[in-house]
Amino acid sequence: MTGPRGLFVAFEGGDGVGKTTQQALLADHLRAQGRDVVVTREPGDSRIGPQVRSIVLDGGDLDPRAEALLFAADRADHVAHVVRPALHRGAVVLVDRYIDSSVTYQGEGRGLGREEIAAISRFATEGLLPDLTVVLDLDEAARAERVRRQGYVDRIEREPDHLHERVRRAFLELAAAEPHRYLVVDAGRPPAEVAADIAVAVDKVIRA
Amino acid sequence: MTGPRGLFVAFEGGDGVGKTTQQALLADHLRAQGRDVVVTREPGDSRIGPQVRSIVLDGGDLDPRAEALLFAADRADHVAHVVRPALHRGAVVLVDRYIDSSVTYQGEGRGLGREEIAAISRFATEGLLPDLTVVLDLDEAARAERVRRQGYVDRIEREPDHLHERVRRAFLELAAAEPHRYLVVDAGRPPAEVAADIAVAVDKVIRA
Repeated sequence: MTGPRGLFVAFEGGDGVGKTTQQALLADHLRAQGRDVVVTREPGDSRIGPQVRSIVLDGGDLDPRAEALLFAADRADHVAHVVRPALHRGAVVLVDRYIDSSVTYQGEGRGLGREEIAAISRFATEGLLPDLTVVLDLDEAARAERVRRQGYVDRIEREPDHLHERVRRAFLELAAAEPHRYLVVDAGRPPAEVAADIAVAVDKVIRA
Repeated sequence: MTGPRGLFVAFEGGDGVGKTTQQALLADHLRAQGRDVVVTREPGDSRIGPQVRSIVLDGGDLDPRAEALLFAADRADHVAHVVRPALHRGAVVLVDRYIDSSVTYQGEGRGLGREEIAAISRFATEGLLPDLTVVLDLDEAARAERVRRQGYVDRIEREPDHLHERVRRAFLELAAAEPHRYLVVDAGRPPAEVAADIAVAVDKVIRA
């Protein structure tokens, strides 16, 4: 990377843990400081995202390797045309799901191999990693209950509980392996408390 | 792979060298022996192929990494749902373009790295390689003249000559590195002569 550099923060964790809420609260916090904030998500906020999503959703028994490669293509386009330009102009980019979601859901959950999936994402992003990844951690019973209350039950959600447990454990292991790049927060608390912890951590990274 | 195994033959080389013609002539030769022959091509003959092609063609300045990953997704789907099922039932599968086209055009031509692109294709295909890859080799002046005569000038064809020369050299280097898996034929001769050489080589692989 050359030129001025913004800050890149990823939100990770299962569906229902509050990623979108926390992303919005952090955006408010940073905008109150006068910062240029870009709120985005994967998959889908790339230019090819709508088409990629429609292939994945219509795919029926889409081969899991094809699915992983489509998500990676979406990520390559998203990083090239949304994330990097924003970072270059000095913005803070907040992304809802990034590489770790692929590593946990496709690599671990679908059994395609964490390292294989990580390598494909490194290729897709030319190695662009977040300055901070926030893992919103919630025990599986509470997470599943939240998803049921929200009435949001997709293909992933219909997978058995042990898949979600494996995905949760994989997120925690990724965080434990590189603690300087991660913040793990207990997402079972009130959103404002969670947001306060995230704001403190992000302000610290900004000052660093 | 378990169960009965067919034969997998890939045709490689630049546009205009006669891959489609030679594929059809070999299919005729093998069907005359009573064989079950599947004639297919990449990109596009997967179930997601039409959608992938439309993204790549509509993509404007599509990020080259996104493009490479979309081709790999198409390949994963094609191998899982077309090539492997046909090989399992014992068919001969003739594919117009396969991994080497990605390695030469994206890896070498677009500078994304031959080994990086090969690794992504290994992931996509679970390492499925052709029993024989036929490289149709033609000097660049003759190839470009054939393409002009056919009136077929796409985005790749508008690239400068030295790109096509690099792609041609890359095909020849891949063949030279694993001569037991390749047949390089001089595609400047009459189609029937080229077809006869290919038929001899394929019959030898079938008897082996």
